[in-house]
Amino acid sequence: MLFVIGPGHGAPAALAALWLEGSLGRFYPNKYSTDRKGLNNLITKFSVPGGFPSHINPETPGSIHEGGELGYALAVSFGAVMDNPDLIVTCVVGDGEAESGPTAAAWHAIKYLDPAESGAVIPILHVNGFKISERTIFGCMDDKELLALFSGYGYSVCIVEALDRIDDELSCALEWALSEIRHIQKRARQGKPLIKPRWPMVILRTPKGWGGPKKVDGNFIEGSFHSHQVPLSKAKTDKGHLEILGEWLGGYGVGQLLPEGRPAKSILEVLPKTDSKKLGQVKYGYDAYQPLVMPDWRPFAQDKGTQASSMKETGKLLAAVASKNPKGFRMFSPDELESNKLDAILDNTGRNFQWDEYSRAKGGRVIEILSEHSCQGFMQGYTLTGRTALFPSYESFLGIIHTMVVQYSKFNKVAREVDWRRDLSSINYIETSTWARQEHNGFSHQNPSFIGAILNLKADAARVYLPPDANCFLSTVDHCLKSKNYVNLIIGSKQPTAVYLSPEDAAEHCRKGAAIWKFASSNDGKDPDVVLVGIGVEVTFEVVKAAELLRTLVPELNVRVVNVTDLFVLAAESRHPHALSRKDFIEMFTDDKPVCFNYHGYEKELQGLIFGRPGLHRMTVEGYKEEGSTTTPFDMMIVNGVSRFDLAKRALRATSEQKTSLQAKVDDLLAAVNSELAKVKDYISSEGKDPDDLYDMPTGI
Amino acid sequence: MLFVIGPGHGAPAALAALWLEGSLGRFYPNKYSTDRKGLNNLITKFSVPGGFPSHINPETPGSIHEGGELGYALAVSFGAVMDNPDLIVTCVVGDGEAESGPTAAAWHAIKYLDPAESGAVIPILHVNGFKISERTIFGCMDDKELLALFSGYGYSVCIVEALDRIDDELSCALEWALSEIRHIQKRARQGKPLIKPRWPMVILRTPKGWGGPKKVDGNFIEGSFHSHQVPLSKAKTDKGHLEILGEWLGGYGVGQLLPEGRPAKSILEVLPKTDSKKLGQVKYGYDAYQPLVMPDWRPFAQDKGTQASSMKETGKLLAAVASKNPKGFRMFSPDELESNKLDAILDNTGRNFQWDEYSRAKGGRVIEILSEHSCQGFMQGYTLTGRTALFPSYESFLGIIHTMVVQYSKFNKVAREVDWRRDLSSINYIETSTWARQEHNGFSHQNPSFIGAILNLKADAARVYLPPDANCFLSTVDHCLKSKNYVNLIIGSKQPTAVYLSPEDAAEHCRKGAAIWKFASSNDGKDPDVVLVGIGVEVTFEVVKAAELLRTLVPELNVRVVNVTDLFVLAAESRHPHALSRKDFIEMFTDDKPVCFNYHGYEKELQGLIFGRPGLHRMTVEGYKEEGSTTTPFDMMIVNGVSRFDLAKRALRATSEQKTSLQAKVDDLLAAVNSELAKVKDYISSEGKDPDDLYDMPTGI
Repeated sequence: MLFVIGPGHGAPAALAALWLEGSLGRFYPNKYSTDRKGLNNLITKFSVPGGFPSHINPETPGSIHEGGELGYALAVSFGAVMDNPDLIVTCVVGDGEAESGPTAAAWHAIKYLDPAESGAVIPILHVNGFKISERTIFGCMDDKELLALFSGYGYSVCIVEALDRIDDELSCALEWALSEIRHIQKRARQGKPLIKPRWPMVILRTPKGWGGPKKVDGNFIEGSFHSHQVPLSKAKTDKGHLEILGEWLGGYGVGQLLPEGRPAKSILEVLPKTDSKKLGQVKYGYDAYQPLVMPDWRPFAQDKGTQASSMKETGKLLAAVASKNPKGFRMFSPDELESNKLDAILDNTGRNFQWDEYSRAKGGRVIEILSEHSCQGFMQGYTLTGRTALFPSYESFLGIIHTMVVQYSKFNKVAREVDWRRDLSSINYIETSTWARQEHNGFSHQNPSFIGAILNLKADAARVYLPPDANCFLSTVDHCLKSKNYVNLIIGSKQPTAVYLSPEDAAEHCRKGAAIWKFASSNDGKDPDVVLVGIGVEVTFEVVKAAELLRTLVPELNVRVVNVTDLFVLAAESRHPHALSRKDFIEMFTDDKPVCFNYHGYEKELQGLIFGRPGLHRMTVEGYKEEGSTTTPFDMMIVNGVSRFDLAKRALRATSEQKTSLQAKVDDLLAAVNSELAKVKDYISSEGKDPDDLYDMPTGI
Repeated sequence: MLFVIGPGHGAPAALAALWLEGSLGRFYPNKYSTDRKGLNNLITKFSVPGGFPSHINPETPGSIHEGGELGYALAVSFGAVMDNPDLIVTCVVGDGEAESGPTAAAWHAIKYLDPAESGAVIPILHVNGFKISERTIFGCMDDKELLALFSGYGYSVCIVEALDRIDDELSCALEWALSEIRHIQKRARQGKPLIKPRWPMVILRTPKGWGGPKKVDGNFIEGSFHSHQVPLSKAKTDKGHLEILGEWLGGYGVGQLLPEGRPAKSILEVLPKTDSKKLGQVKYGYDAYQPLVMPDWRPFAQDKGTQASSMKETGKLLAAVASKNPKGFRMFSPDELESNKLDAILDNTGRNFQWDEYSRAKGGRVIEILSEHSCQGFMQGYTLTGRTALFPSYESFLGIIHTMVVQYSKFNKVAREVDWRRDLSSINYIETSTWARQEHNGFSHQNPSFIGAILNLKADAARVYLPPDANCFLSTVDHCLKSKNYVNLIIGSKQPTAVYLSPEDAAEHCRKGAAIWKFASSNDGKDPDVVLVGIGVEVTFEVVKAAELLRTLVPELNVRVVNVTDLFVLAAESRHPHALSRKDFIEMFTDDKPVCFNYHGYEKELQGLIFGRPGLHRMTVEGYKEEGSTTTPFDMMIVNGVSRFDLAKRALRATSEQKTSLQAKVDDLLAAVNSELAKVKDYISSEGKDPDDLYDMPTGI
């Protein structure tokens, strides 16, 4: 059993239990041994520099969830038990957290839990009536309202609220919950599953600050918001406060419970005899990583010079991954699998939605719930207990779980600093249906800002890939699913696009992260007058086409085309492990020639990333700039200033400042480009579609 | 009555009705007149460049909600009716959207609605059983489950599902809902409010794609996910598809309904007689802005040279705003008002939570619900119907509604391009309890990334302020609450900090956005050898202290201190309306001296913002870098490399490269700074707190 604690500042209760059972002593033998010295450290170092924080964090043995930002405990718990048939997660949800949307959605998670293959969660909704200072919604609901609500969600509810016998009642409630779970699981595992099984949950009502001081300075403390965090704020200076503190703590009889600073025999007797069953030492929580069995990706690769959808080919690869890993791989998707053209995975597996009487899919590796928060929570719980997951999404909607990823990454960072925690798989995102292809959805579906969320994470864990074609995409997915401890974001197109590189060249390109594309450059990319850089599928196509255009207009101009597939190669040297050395950077981008970046994301992000690189004044960046509607793909390039024509003009202007031979004719050249651009604009606005010749395969492939 | 449509691609239904009732003809007389030409345009331009998109957007008359990103329709609807006692919003929520967390939380919104002062929402949960391709949770719940769930939420539920008489049933259900609302409102407005009134809601079950083709190419269309978006994808090329399309559309009898391309008399008869009651012409939705009556902020200002909490003083100002605007101002806060020290507002108003039997606060201007999504949705609805709201939050948790703000801003951008939509107040955020002060909460509460969300919005609407002291904060809040059409983010400290500027100087500083602080500079800031720039409260204090330190160590070094309070003054010229001109920029930052930025947010954001400014190679940026725990404020400065000592070293290193007289002794100076730093670190780690002298008032104030 694992224990997930939702309530903020909930760490002290867990820490006390972890010290009593010796888990702190095992993982921190010099600091928190189960004796007077350890006890002293536990108390005096609490919530000060060098000690445990007041929220749960990865330094807390047994924890799989960063406390603090509320709302995710429940979804994480359900993710943890998926495909772990012997695991039960007890999850306490506070009545503050319960007001949050992500929690409100996550109650439905039982509907995605197959009792034959997965474990179970015992949710305990702890209703104490107050948040930091306002009353809670759930605290103001009576028992009938609560019973109706949670019965409606699908639970069998037990309310525990008799304060005079609460230990017995809670104990009985948990025994009941366990027996309900065993019954549901037994039936399912015997092949006679219950239809819509009513999973157990407990609602625990106690006064906030129960057992603490009743009244201080005329204010009620117990049963009031005043008990939040620090009930006796002046204990250091006010004698009255100190006295109340003494009475309160004295009431626990610590002398008998902890004779000579060690747990009394009566406590030791109730602890599990086996270490691996103790709250802080359950292996699921810190040492459970099972690497995926990965199929070879190359059979799914496409011929160079064809057109292919990165998502369709990736769907086939993922189908093979699902086949080879029937218990260790899952996909969580907010209802866009089919739209994102990843549905080939459904050839080898199904969706796992138990409430649907027509499917009751067994063993399905895909969950599609229209709650990004639930998808993310499931992925976190699944990953933190050792398995591997993938979260594909429309590009614009991954930002919904921006702060969840930041919280997860904080957990991940500190977990890597804790020596007793073992590796985890990476968490993996695929973004498609990007802003560049919004002929059906439009402005609301144009938001590449999730890249920015990853850019600000710690460099040793953050990875952003924008593979330019299907083969690079496959190679990148393969790499990410094998990688450990990262946050991987992979962005690509679901529409068929040019395959520039053979599988071998794609693998090499992804290894390097960026390369000069000789086939798209003039003079094989040597001695460039200007460097055009594409980062992202559609904007890279425009780069290749701009180079073609410039070759036709100004044959004497040496244009080098660079594609960046691993965004972090551009980071200033030493700021990211993938950052190109200064020498390699200059070799690729020169140290004085104009560099025009055509970037998939917001320009400021890339500008911030390359800050510190030599010669920034010669570099220009254009990207998505919040312009667009339901319109054609090429119109999206135009309105955001990243079309081949815009780029060609940018290159001509920048180069003509340096290259004297160009200065005389630059105005004519710009006029020629403008006239081409005007023709395309006219066509789009009159026909409502793009001219067919825009999508011709680039020359030189 | 306003109509809010949650379901994606839900625009066509609304557009058809808007054309029929003449609202499209009124607002787009040349394009969508109520005749054959207008009808032709409506059909042929739908979802192509220049026409209406398939999701609701601000070009749709009567809309107050950007369709596309699902989950927010319900909260927006409730925000719209607050303080609008005569308004009813009918809100359709699809069963896809209903799976989202934000919607799941927003059902509780009735508990924050006082029927005496506010209008009502009629939620219609439309259950058609399918999302894009997977079945829905709600579609797989039977009537008993749905009744239990929504009764638990507090609703009185009417299920409409008899397909053979659905128009009658739906009509009856709406009449019933209206009468329930009138009853609840009447009782409350007579001073005899119902306790926990059971507001009405409707659950409408119909097959997905109802009325469309039954079967195409062997696939069921009606009643299946195949009807999503485009049921007959090959109608252009496949004769069979075209035939089915003809039968389907022919079945509506368009010839009788629209003789000669105009609505038949039978249709015109059921339309409201008054234009202002028509779906698309209700004034609440496009022309309802009521500016706030603003009190003078200066009486709340503090004396220069004292210490003051920006939040405490702002709380008092907001109390005055609440008094002066009993119906046009609200604060939405996720349960942190008291912790954020803004609780002075409660002296003049209360919390508005109806379910709490002990308060049943009447007229309270504050809602505290632990759902950032609900707070944001309420604020949007409230603002879009003409009033003004403020959303204060812990800094780290505003990122939770990152994508909602982007969606709102998209609505706002297009609304400003639509000539018949009038001004709106800005939406306003206060961020406090920042990463710099995490002695109680720690790592999970350290996330300044919401700044990045605002940086990527369209420049003409995006505003980010980091006022350095309480007086600047007050002046900024005053400005923001009066401003129109922006997204304002204001970041400050809740702890007492130095007041550097008199109220007059503060007002002037805020007007300019940035200034040289002579009192903190050497040589009155003239002829600097190095420019130190503070952006944000705590990091600016470190800048001032670093200048002091350098003055002591190297009296001959001219140090200029600059504070930036309006972040966008730094944007490259022409990239933002507030951007300093090149001349002003150089006057403030020189064109060749080292510039060391000490920035409150992530360094990459600022680096991206200043890209394009002259001489980037001489500039260095440090900010929050994902380091910290529950630790002392000064330790947070140290671990993130923005302490006075780090900054002094940065300045010395950078300046010594230019200033030859410094080169000989720079190593000694660095050693001296390091030794000071080591002393502070030792003290913090041994005592668990910061040395008192760190917080001395800066000299020169």
